Amino acid sequence: MAAPEKPWGGRFEQDTDPAVERFTASVHVDRELARYDIRGSIAHARMLGRTGVIPEADADELVRGLEEIGREVEAGTLPLDPRLEDIHMNVESRLRDRIGPVAGRLHTGRSRNDQVATDLALYLRDAARAMRAGLLELRRVLVRRATEHLDTILPGYTHLQRAQPVRLAHHWLAFFEMLGRDAGRFADLDRRLALSPLGSGALAGTTLPLDRDDTARALGFAGPTRNSMDAVGARDGALEFLAACAIAMVHLSRLAEELVLWSSSEFGFVELADAYATGSSLMPQKKNPDVPELVRGKTGRVIGDLVALLTIVKGLPLTYNRDLQEDKEPVFDAAGTLRDSLAVLAGALATLTVRTGRMRAAAEDPLLLATDLAEALVREAVPFREAHEVVGRIVAHCVSTGADLRTLSHDALRRFHPAFPSGADDLLSLERALERRNLPGATARVRVLEALAAAETELAKEAGSLTAAQEIP
Amino acid sequence: MAAPEKPWGGRFEQDTDPAVERFTASVHVDRELARYDIRGSIAHARMLGRTGVIPEADADELVRGLEEIGREVEAGTLPLDPRLEDIHMNVESRLRDRIGPVAGRLHTGRSRNDQVATDLALYLRDAARAMRAGLLELRRVLVRRATEHLDTILPGYTHLQRAQPVRLAHHWLAFFEMLGRDAGRFADLDRRLALSPLGSGALAGTTLPLDRDDTARALGFAGPTRNSMDAVGARDGALEFLAACAIAMVHLSRLAEELVLWSSSEFGFVELADAYATGSSLMPQKKNPDVPELVRGKTGRVIGDLVALLTIVKGLPLTYNRDLQEDKEPVFDAAGTLRDSLAVLAGALATLTVRTGRMRAAAEDPLLLATDLAEALVREAVPFREAHEVVGRIVAHCVSTGADLRTLSHDALRRFHPAFPSGADDLLSLERALERRNLPGATARVRVLEALAAAETELAKEAGSLTAAQEIP
Amino acid sequence: MAAPEKPWGGRFEQDTDPAVERFTASVHVDRELARYDIRGSIAHARMLGRTGVIPEADADELVRGLEEIGREVEAGTLPLDPRLEDIHMNVESRLRDRIGPVAGRLHTGRSRNDQVATDLALYLRDAARAMRAGLLELRRVLVRRATEHLDTILPGYTHLQRAQPVRLAHHWLAFFEMLGRDAGRFADLDRRLALSPLGSGALAGTTLPLDRDDTARALGFAGPTRNSMDAVGARDGALEFLAACAIAMVHLSRLAEELVLWSSSEFGFVELADAYATGSSLMPQKKNPDVPELVRGKTGRVIGDLVALLTIVKGLPLTYNRDLQEDKEPVFDAAGTLRDSLAVLAGALATLTVRTGRMRAAAEDPLLLATDLAEALVREAVPFREAHEVVGRIVAHCVSTGADLRTLSHDALRRFHPAFPSGADDLLSLERALERRNLPGATARVRVLEALAAAETELAKEAGSLTAAQEIP
Amino acid sequence: MAAPEKPWGGRFEQDTDPAVERFTASVHVDRELARYDIRGSIAHARMLGRTGVIPEADADELVRGLEEIGREVEAGTLPLDPRLEDIHMNVESRLRDRIGPVAGRLHTGRSRNDQVATDLALYLRDAARAMRAGLLELRRVLVRRATEHLDTILPGYTHLQRAQPVRLAHHWLAFFEMLGRDAGRFADLDRRLALSPLGSGALAGTTLPLDRDDTARALGFAGPTRNSMDAVGARDGALEFLAACAIAMVHLSRLAEELVLWSSSEFGFVELADAYATGSSLMPQKKNPDVPELVRGKTGRVIGDLVALLTIVKGLPLTYNRDLQEDKEPVFDAAGTLRDSLAVLAGALATLTVRTGRMRAAAEDPLLLATDLAEALVREAVPFREAHEVVGRIVAHCVSTGADLRTLSHDALRRFHPAFPSGADDLLSLERALERRNLPGATARVRVLEALAAAETELAKEAGSLTAAQEIP
Repeated sequence: MAAPEKPWGGRFEQDTDPAVERFTASVHVDRELARYDIRGSIAHARMLGRTGVIPEADADELVRGLEEIGREVEAGTLPLDPRLEDIHMNVESRLRDRIGPVAGRLHTGRSRNDQVATDLALYLRDAARAMRAGLLELRRVLVRRATEHLDTILPGYTHLQRAQPVRLAHHWLAFFEMLGRDAGRFADLDRRLALSPLGSGALAGTTLPLDRDDTARALGFAGPTRNSMDAVGARDGALEFLAACAIAMVHLSRLAEELVLWSSSEFGFVELADAYATGSSLMPQKKNPDVPELVRGKTGRVIGDLVALLTIVKGLPLTYNRDLQEDKEPVFDAAGTLRDSLAVLAGALATLTVRTGRMRAAAEDPLLLATDLAEALVREAVPFREAHEVVGRIVAHCVSTGADLRTLSHDALRRFHPAFPSGADDLLSLERALERRNLPGATARVRVLEALAAAETELAKEAGSLTAAQEIP
Repeated sequence: MAAPEKPWGGRFEQDTDPAVERFTASVHVDRELARYDIRGSIAHARMLGRTGVIPEADADELVRGLEEIGREVEAGTLPLDPRLEDIHMNVESRLRDRIGPVAGRLHTGRSRNDQVATDLALYLRDAARAMRAGLLELRRVLVRRATEHLDTILPGYTHLQRAQPVRLAHHWLAFFEMLGRDAGRFADLDRRLALSPLGSGALAGTTLPLDRDDTARALGFAGPTRNSMDAVGARDGALEFLAACAIAMVHLSRLAEELVLWSSSEFGFVELADAYATGSSLMPQKKNPDVPELVRGKTGRVIGDLVALLTIVKGLPLTYNRDLQEDKEPVFDAAGTLRDSLAVLAGALATLTVRTGRMRAAAEDPLLLATDLAEALVREAVPFREAHEVVGRIVAHCVSTGADLRTLSHDALRRFHPAFPSGADDLLSLERALERRNLPGATARVRVLEALAAAETELAKEAGSLTAAQEIP
Repeated sequence: MAAPEKPWGGRFEQDTDPAVERFTASVHVDRELARYDIRGSIAHARMLGRTGVIPEADADELVRGLEEIGREVEAGTLPLDPRLEDIHMNVESRLRDRIGPVAGRLHTGRSRNDQVATDLALYLRDAARAMRAGLLELRRVLVRRATEHLDTILPGYTHLQRAQPVRLAHHWLAFFEMLGRDAGRFADLDRRLALSPLGSGALAGTTLPLDRDDTARALGFAGPTRNSMDAVGARDGALEFLAACAIAMVHLSRLAEELVLWSSSEFGFVELADAYATGSSLMPQKKNPDVPELVRGKTGRVIGDLVALLTIVKGLPLTYNRDLQEDKEPVFDAAGTLRDSLAVLAGALATLTVRTGRMRAAAEDPLLLATDLAEALVREAVPFREAHEVVGRIVAHCVSTGADLRTLSHDALRRFHPAFPSGADDLLSLERALERRNLPGATARVRVLEALAAAETELAKEAGSLTAAQEIP
Repeated sequence: MAAPEKPWGGRFEQDTDPAVERFTASVHVDRELARYDIRGSIAHARMLGRTGVIPEADADELVRGLEEIGREVEAGTLPLDPRLEDIHMNVESRLRDRIGPVAGRLHTGRSRNDQVATDLALYLRDAARAMRAGLLELRRVLVRRATEHLDTILPGYTHLQRAQPVRLAHHWLAFFEMLGRDAGRFADLDRRLALSPLGSGALAGTTLPLDRDDTARALGFAGPTRNSMDAVGARDGALEFLAACAIAMVHLSRLAEELVLWSSSEFGFVELADAYATGSSLMPQKKNPDVPELVRGKTGRVIGDLVALLTIVKGLPLTYNRDLQEDKEPVFDAAGTLRDSLAVLAGALATLTVRTGRMRAAAEDPLLLATDLAEALVREAVPFREAHEVVGRIVAHCVSTGADLRTLSHDALRRFHPAFPSGADDLLSLERALERRNLPGATARVRVLEALAAAETELAKEAGSLTAAQEIP
């Protein structure tokens, strides 16, 4: 088959080297842009007709052809030829096949530079909302499981050492908070990307009387971008998206790490459903937490995606440089990875068996309540540092003698400090210890109930906000 | 000197190995936290007194001692002992020296975990505002220099090839836009960090009746954080700060790259002031653009800072792990690097000599107006693709014959396409070419004047917003 | 179609969730491993037969089936089913289709853990040699073009400022050196990977009497690995490969940057062949250096690949964790990117037009020889610092008066320092200046000729070494 | 105090801006280079005298002064002035204070570009050997502890699930292998850096008759570098060093992760000595594994160091650009971090209490021997896939009925498959299971003894090689 003609071939005498065609092609990657490209082209064509830059009838013809190609895109039947470099040229070529030479009017007053910047902005805004939707679903599962496990008690850890007892609901709501901030980052990005690059031309605008407000509105933007060189040459929207993805993946990696730890025989706190685990080709007894392991591992690839683009953009002079073609692959990879990771973690968590007995048994470790002993002395007016020192000695005593902290009598305690108000058995009840932690944001039952109620409200609000955002044309 | 006692020594029998003391110490780094640590401790002490958790008189004594230490911090005279691990323990030890055993009441109901999370939040919010202030100053210089150079014309570049003529004002306003979005990212972060971790204890709150709203208000927060485990264990605030710094540095690296390029003999567009350049120890003739080179280079270190912390936090189970001690060095390094880079670039730009003649000469390259020729045909109803092809052939003709595009007669043009409306000399005047680019965001004089006016308004608004933010107690 | 049975399904009651199957599948990625997997399986099967662990006839049957599948792999006709997770299970399943239940003997005494470690080692060693071959080809082109341009003179730059004149041959041989060290890194890696993981089982070996020396030899290894847990759990081979790729790409990015700079109108030192450049969809006059721009950009993706895997492996306990599945994609991506970048740069350089006149004109800048003036004074026993200061003042004089350094008379020079031996016209001939730089490694003609001869010798040696390496079975 | 004069001030009229002096200064960082700088300067001065480029008496005077400054460096008393930019200028200024104007002859025929490249090569070679020494020490401790724990049995893990029993010696020797490859990477780097950049001048050599072989020999190099532009402009030595550090830190992070996991109450396999752990400021009972946590965390910073420099060098044209000043801080940081991490991990491991009973108890989990059951069937000629499936069903039976695998009678086993040779009690003895794993590199006692002997030999060889390397002048 003869090589298709290049849209810029006029001044060139030699054909492009085939290895170079392969090296520079991005069709395999920017396939994901097709729907945005067509949406942008339809808005552009309509505006060209409305402003009289091209005949109205031609504009109608362009729109009709583009809509047909849009259906091919959705059906996955649009043929893509790498020799046509990129998605934009593939669409235009397809259009010529369908509607003839009038297709040559589509690119009027437009450059691939403002076209791809527009496609990317549309993609990023859609992706930001998709990430919020995925975060919302995982947060819903967290709240549902937290509600079920309001009264499941486990040790809270610092340094992977048992520290103080907490409710499992409280533990999981910590992730609810982190993921809520992640959603906030995507919402901020969506807002910051609310200006349309279309009409910025190659870098300096165009001499034709386009209507940038018209295309901006048609594509759901608040208005046109304010500087054409910025519009075609900047990529901080993509960088911000990648950073938000990387931070969210780091949060997921922490949840995943806990699922791996908790699935071990040593912890034994949870068991993944068979549908969310896999076995070993050699060892018949194995049930491996592959899903959380992969989420943890894939965090590395998203960090790599962010590094790739930061490094690519660093040190580039204005405006567009071909290096920027490499922006799309990390963005699509990060979006897909985060979307899938959110979905499988939501499924894994929804179907997780919690071994409440194992958790409770671990939380019964009396040393977890050493802080409570110290704070009991503080309530008797002992300075905290003195109280901490005293209880440190009691703990050392228990560790070396094997004594159980909870069985220390009032007399025994008073030998360490005369201000102890009662015996350890009274001070160190697990339930009472939890109830004593009754500040805002702490783990007492009533506080966690408050937090669950607030979480439900926030979920409803975010769901409403997402629905509204989707309704933009 | 005898090793100082550890605040947690109660249960330990052996002393810490000195190599371990050095390895785990962070005093050399978190010195920058001192002022925030003292501010947090004063708020905590006042609240302890107000709520009666400790005697009012003791609280007053604590506050008095802390204020004295605060003055030592500002004067740079506070002695820091690495064997005391970190800034928190150094401050408490100093306090004991000054006010005696009552110092032992300060840490009541507080852990280093919520303390350092609070310090970090205070630091990050201040730093976010400092970055906005630095961005504001550089944007001011950009607007000032842009205003001076409204009528300086140079080639706009894509692929480092001359593309179309633009005003230098338009070029520099592209950076104004990028840096404005950078400021927006820091403002979003400030807002997202508006909750106070203080009162979250080690991870689960405390059993003492603290007033978290009181300390939150006193420290300029909107309220307390909502989950204690999230409050002490999350670091996405620091990650978001580092990401915003890295993106801003990438923008600065692009401006720096242009200053380096433009300072070369080959471009010759600008000359840095002697105060912003250095010479060679060997070659007497050299004047090197070290300042922009270093800004470009330091972008790498800030990207490295971001990678460091993403990697550190990835895969950590809840809540605090000692790995997180490593959060501060990248944050301080990135903040300092961005702050200094903004300042020296502002100085370099403010004192830059612009060689308007060299720029203009480069912009006179007639090929830069090839697009205008094509768009002239479009205005005569020729489809754009056809017009592009026609002008491509004209360009090839000029390149091979050495002819100047501007001297082509109407007849010559019409031999390429009958629709050409007039001769190239008329179509290709540089000034008229700029004026024809008259869409919003483009480079026509009136559009750039609009953009400069909008920029002044935005600078004033951002200055007002920063002043208001600083007034928070 | 019914879901294929899992090879580890025995203890599982529920089917894997389809979203999880997709999330955990790696078939689309490890397709590149297929040929190595089959090579490893053939060696394993032969050994099983030879040692009597399975019947000889069964071993022959396995080998026959595997060879058939190998031919399918080479022809690209092997069907891959993502529900079979990975390449290993796809091959085994295909084998069962072809030779029936005896296929079930293949995995005897083997785990996917040692299998994939073996596949990866084979892949990395092949890839290391492929990278050396690509580097060799580009170095050949560098030497060829350098030989042609022995007498082409251009300015050498520091800080992108013209510094001292050099031969273009000398300039390009600098890249020859860098790429030679890159090849050395791949050779070191190949040597470090010379031990076979096969026979390490899941992590602890196997209870069956395998012959690890036999399979090691059959696969071109020097012997078996020395610790089974290391063999299945370590990935530093892949990390070292990625690091070597990233460093090599950084070198290519520097060469690419120069091609971009030199292609600009301002430098005008070179012109890429049409076959290695592309045009603009909007601006008919543009000829863009897309190939070097993309090489420069793709450097970012390879750095990202390295970061991804470092982050993935960091903090994993022994031995295999599913996170490690994510090792292959960055490795394949980096290998493919470096291979292609080497090839297109070799092509671009081989077909590059050098504008020797533009280079020479730039090198004629008399200030480039200021160092020579200073060193002339040093030869008259003036201390260097004094000489540097004197010439600095001469340069300032020329810059401020517009005088040409070369026209300064002996008298004029002597007014700056009495020791000047002759007039500048005599001291500052460009050719003589080059010839005076006559130390080993410097730019005098004879030194560059020596370097070219040494380069030819080294190319021949590397070619011989690669041929020998390829002959390993 | 008056600003010191710049060594390149001749052509400049304005002073450097003080903020720029601070921004461009590197004295605080390259202090670590001082000893190498002086060593290089002494070699250079001696050669200048020997070749007659400067008078012999002046050369002696330079050497004497430099030696005095060298003693100040070692004593830490050399004053450093940031206004003198860097270490080189500080040393030269100090020299002028000591020996007067003859100091101005030192920089004859030398540029800071070749000087700093030489300093860096000397530093990197020394640091590479220091890393090897640190790795050697940690490997010694691993072998010593492994020897003590030849008969300590614990579960080997995959996916953090108990997989098969192994000897603790075998487990720790896996790290011995990884760290051995790390040492190999540093040795390769040392070899690749064996050429001296000194005499390459700013970029093109010098016109003075220096003897590059002489200085190369005096500094322990095998000879001079082969291309002056490569010598001053390349930084792949530093990149390779950083990559080797990052990979080694990743290995340490894995060992650290295990120490953290094993120190948890849930595992309880080890207890760190008090000297290698710290406590909590709030919770009196805590003993935290801070040392391994910090090693794990600091891995992030070293990965960040590598990313920083890769990003800095990417896309720089030849030769030296000021960006490269930023090479030293990541190199010094990575070297110091790896050195300290090796030392504290060696200490922590040497003093670690191993709870052999807890390990043994975990290893007694009968499911760990499921593979052995399957392989028993294989020895009875059952195809492995069938055997795996059968044992999978046995495991599912045990899990659902709570039966202990080891108590299954021969009859019970035969109900699952008629080929079972004897009852599980016979097949599933822990010691016999270990001894059955008797291939090279596996965990049988005799194999581990062989590995320990080989390790001792390798340690002795590496120690000898390091001693020899240190003796280079």
